[in-house]
Parts: sequence; C-alpha cells; structure tokens
Amino acid sequence: DPKLKVFTCNANPRLAEAICKHIGVPLGKANVTRFSDGEIQVHINESVRGADVFVIQSTSAPVNEHLMELLVMVDALKRASAKSINVVMPYYGYARQDRKTRARDPITAKLVANLIETAGASRVITMDLHATQIQGFFDIPVDHLLGVPILADYFLAKNLDDIVVVSPDHGGVTRARKLAERLKAPIAIIDKRRPKPNVAEIMNIVGAVEGKTCILIDDIIDTAGTITLAANALAENGAQEVYACCTHPVLSGPAIERIQNSKIKELVVTDTIPLPEEKQIDKAIVLSVAPLMGEAIIRVHEELSVSKLFN
Amino acid sequence: DPKLKVFTCNANPRLAEAICKHIGVPLGKANVTRFSDGEIQVHINESVRGADVFVIQSTSAPVNEHLMELLVMVDALKRASAKSINVVMPYYGYARQDRKTRARDPITAKLVANLIETAGASRVITMDLHATQIQGFFDIPVDHLLGVPILADYFLAKNLDDIVVVSPDHGGVTRARKLAERLKAPIAIIDKRRPKPNVAEIMNIVGAVEGKTCILIDDIIDTAGTITLAANALAENGAQEVYACCTHPVLSGPAIERIQNSKIKELVVTDTIPLPEEKQIDKAIVLSVAPLMGEAIIRVHEELSVSKLFN
Ligand SMILES: Nc1ncnc2c1ncn2[C@@H]1O[C@H](COP(=O)(O)O)[C@@H](O)[C@H]1O
Ligand SMILES: Nc1ncnc2c1ncn2[C@@H]1O[C@H](COP(=O)(O)O)[C@@H](O)[C@H]1O
Repeated sequence: DPKLKVFTCNANPRLAEAICKHIGVPLGKANVTRFSDGEIQVHINESVRGADVFVIQSTSAPVNEHLMELLVMVDALKRASAKSINVVMPYYGYARQDRKTRARDPITAKLVANLIETAGASRVITMDLHATQIQGFFDIPVDHLLGVPILADYFLAKNLDDIVVVSPDHGGVTRARKLAERLKAPIAIIDKRRPKPNVAEIMNIVGAVEGKTCILIDDIIDTAGTITLAANALAENGAQEVYACCTHPVLSGPAIERIQNSKIKELVVTDTIPLPEEKQIDKAIVLSVAPLMGEAIIRVHEELSVSKLFN
Repeated sequence: DPKLKVFTCNANPRLAEAICKHIGVPLGKANVTRFSDGEIQVHINESVRGADVFVIQSTSAPVNEHLMELLVMVDALKRASAKSINVVMPYYGYARQDRKTRARDPITAKLVANLIETAGASRVITMDLHATQIQGFFDIPVDHLLGVPILADYFLAKNLDDIVVVSPDHGGVTRARKLAERLKAPIAIIDKRRPKPNVAEIMNIVGAVEGKTCILIDDIIDTAGTITLAANALAENGAQEVYACCTHPVLSGPAIERIQNSKIKELVVTDTIPLPEEKQIDKAIVLSVAPLMGEAIIRVHEELSVSKLFN
C-alpha cells in the first residue's frame, strides 16, 4: 500500500500540523528557505519514492512567494519519484482574476492552474473558489470543499434568535442561501446602486432585517470595504446585531481597522489563511478547516490506493 | 510587416527605456501594479494584435515577484493576440539551481523554463547564463548573448599595462580565457583547497600575478565572498592592482560592504540588474547592455518578418 506523506511550505504551517494531527501522520521533513538573494531553496529530508504526497500550501499573501514555494516543492517531489503529488491549497490566490473584464486582461487564475500542472501536480484539493469555473481551468482532478457547513455549525451552536443571512452583493446570493438553509433562516441582499457616476452608492436592502440578528457571508474578505459598508447599512436599517463570516480572511490594507470601527459584532473566519499575528482582531473567531481537509486527504488517499488495485 | 513592440515589467525599466531608445521605438504602454493584497495587476494600454512583442524583464531580486510579473504579462499578451512573444531576460534568475547536487533537489532553472513556455513565450533572449545547458531546458529558441565583449572593450579603452585575467575558481576558466584573448593577456586561476574539513581554505594562485594588473572575472557576483577573498589573495601575492568584473551584479547580503572593504580597486558590471539606489558603491562602473540587447531584438524581429515571407 503506497505511503501517505504530508508536506508543507511556509504559508500555513499551523494548519498543516493540525491536518497531520487529524490524519495521524507526522509532518514530512522538509525545509523551504531562501538563499541570500531571495531565491527559494527546498530540501526534502526524507524519501518520497512511491508515496502519495500531499503538499499543504495556501497561495495567500505574499502570493508570489507562496506560489513559487509550492511550484519548487512540487518540482522537487516529482524528481524524487513521488507516486502522486496532491496539492492542497485551502486558499487559491489569484482566483478573482478569473476572466477578462476588459480588453487585454490576463486570466491569472488560469495561468496559475497551468503553472501548477506544469510543475507536476497530479491533483488539487481546494476550498470555496471565488468562481467554481476555476475547476475547469485544470486538466487534473480538483476536489472543491465547502466552508459553509463549518460556518453553519458555529452559528447553530450559538443558538441565535431571529436570524437573517445577508449577502453583501448580488454575486453572493447562492452562498447566502446555502448558509440560510442550514440555519433554517430567511435571506436578505444588499443591493448597491450608483445613481450617477461620481455619486455615492446607495445601499438598498432587499428583505427584512429590522430587529433581526443579521449574518453577513462572503467567500473572501479582502479590504473589508464591502462587508463593513453592508454591516453599517444593516445597523442603520434596524438590525439587532450584525455578524460577518467568510471562508478566506485575506484582510489586506485597511481591512482590520475598518472591521474594528464597524458595526460588526463578531467576525467568523476559517484558518485557510492565518490571521496576522502582529495585528490582533478582538472580534475574530477562527474555525479550523483541518478536520475537513484531513478527511479529504484520507478519502483521496483511499481512492488512489483502490485505483491502484485496478491497475 | 508586423509591428515591433517593446514592453517592460518592473525589474529594470531604465534598461528597457535605453533599449527602446537604441531601437528607435517608444516603450509600449502598460502598467504592472499590485492589488491591495499583493496580487499582480497587469494592464496593457495599447493594441498588440499581430505584433512581434518583446518583454524586457530580468528575474532579479525579488525574483519571485519579477518572475510572476513576467508570466502574467506574457499571459495577457497571448490573450491579446500578439503574433510572437519574445521574452528578453538579461538576467535569468534561478540559473544556479540547474542540476541536482543532492538527493531530492529541485531543478528550478528547468521549472522556470517550463513556466515561461507554459505562459506562452515563443522565444527567449538572455545573457551569460550561469550554465549554458539551460538553453536546452527550453523547447523554444533561446538567443544567448555574451557580456565578455562589453567588459573587454571597457578594459581595452583603459589601456592598462601588464594585465592578467584571473578566474576566481575552476568553473570560470573558460570565461576568463575569453576575456584574456580579447585583452591579449595571460590568465591565472585561484585554486581553493580545504586541506581538512573545518579548516580554513587555502588560496593557491596558479599563474604569475606579482607586479601585475589583475582583472578578476565572474558571471554573477552575489554575496561577493568568492571575489573579495580572491582579490585579497591576489594583493597578498604581490598584484599591483585588482579589478573585478561580472555581467550580473546580484550583490545580495553583505556584498557591497565586502567589496568596499576589499582590495578591489574598481568593480565593473553591466546593467542586466540595476544597482541598488539606496546603497551607493563608490568603486562601481556600470556598462550598458542596451545596445547589445537592442541589436538582438532588431535581428530577431527581422528574422520573424523574413520567415513570415516564407510562410
Ligand atoms: N487581488 C485582487 N484584489 C482586488 N480586486 C481584484 C483582485 N484580483 C482581481 N480583482 C478584480 O476583481 C474583479 C472580479 O471580482 P468579482 O466580480 O467579485 O469576481 C475583477 O474586476 C478583477 O479585476
Ligand atoms: N540563489 C542561490 N544562491 C546561492 N547558491 C545557490 C543559489 N541557487 C543555487 N545555489 C547553489 O549553488 C550551487 C551551484 O553553483 P555552481 O557550482 O557555481 O553551479 C548549488 O549547490 C546550488 O544549490
């Protein structure tokens, strides 16, 4: 039976440790460091010959460093005769550059897919892609896991009264509905409209929020502009309390300050991206995706072993 | 006749300007910036449809940022229907990771070649590859230019007396011979030996250097350990003056301090990598590769146009 081995690069070593604990395997011995000039140096310090290898690496910021670490690691594993190289990217960087929104745009999400395949990955396991079409950018299997059940379980355990799940924009309605179904709650939508160019947007709320416990949901919270404006609009429209949740806490630029100064009572995120240690967020609750990722790895490893029987 | 267009990313915009001036074309309008979370944003602000496009980008430090800029730019140009995409990398980052020196090493120079091809490049123009074997890592044409003539012309113009060209190690002898031939000078070699493990290396000098003007030559000067130890060994062995030259001034970590404190009288480099503006090097002379690169681009463009006639 081929060995299951788990390695990590530098994006999220804590999550990698938690995943290994869940599976019951030690983390593979490897160092991903830098030469003096900033070039990546990868050393894999144990045999991977014939093993089903899983590499844990979110391509979160610094995205180009983390992506290149992953590619060099995959290259090294391939040349070291790993049987299969399964890239576990809880957060898929560049997912928002998934189509040409104007002439001569790159489609970097597709470029990244090509780079990962070229390096030698045989499979990708990822979570809450900004656009599920990105699965189709790959010619290798992509397992797409969902964060909604983890978020839902957290809110169910809180036993909140009179919930409404709110999508901060039109694009997120499907996601809001999935959470609402699990919470047996209605949904509302923030309907932003700009009446004229260079005039401030008006936030219309479609659905009843007055006196209610609102749960805003998005896939990514990046600069937190959308989510904090939405939270404040909900508060102005009589919401009792406003929670915000997302799978991927990118939290770049002014995000943390905006969240601290907003009407958001609690920010619920997962650990696909580690929160910055230097900048504490008082209101943040972090739920781990390690059990979900761990189960996915075990299932994929079983599948690879079974398919080997049929070879 | 298809248009020749030149674009640049952020590694070396000055060199790109100088190349454009040499060719007599304006620099193509494009912006390579960052989103708030550090993801690369490329905008090409003019049509490239049917054009032979040349992208100037050394993959110097920060190498992963500069490499990804190049790949995203090539992706955008490809999707904008450029006729050919010619990647001009005066400095090829990761060139020293060109073979497995121990078990389970990556071969990142080959990975980089694959990434560039995958992104959509049709040709590569580069200079003084650390290992010329890297040309064979590509399945597209690679034009490999040499810096020795530029360095030689500089030293010839100086009219130095009693020159000896010195290779700082065994690996660089061929390069030293090429410079020596142009300067009609003999060569010498620094022969480092470590008599026992954990004992300091002994620098033997093969060849006559006493009373002579020594010119040390290397392809890359990175941390400058090798070159400054060599310079000091030459001075101890009675060299009159010590010059040092290279094509690619990587100059990472302690390099500049080491050079300042060494017996090197003058450091002669090219502009394949821009010198850090914040850290002045008093002894540095920078020679431009812009005319050489410009001529190469003109020749390649002619070749592409001619081959079009035969299609
Ligand atoms: N890292 C990023 N940060 C902010 N915006 C981005 C980023 N990457 C892509 N975009 C833009 O976000 C938009 C796509 O967002 P969406 O409509 O939510 O799918 C496009 O206009 C992209 O140009
Ligand atoms: N960026 C780098 N900085 C320092 N050493 C490197 C770098 N990249 C690769 N190397 C190492 O340099 C050696 C190759 O140098 P050479 O023998 O001169 O070709 C190998 O042992 C590599 O592992």
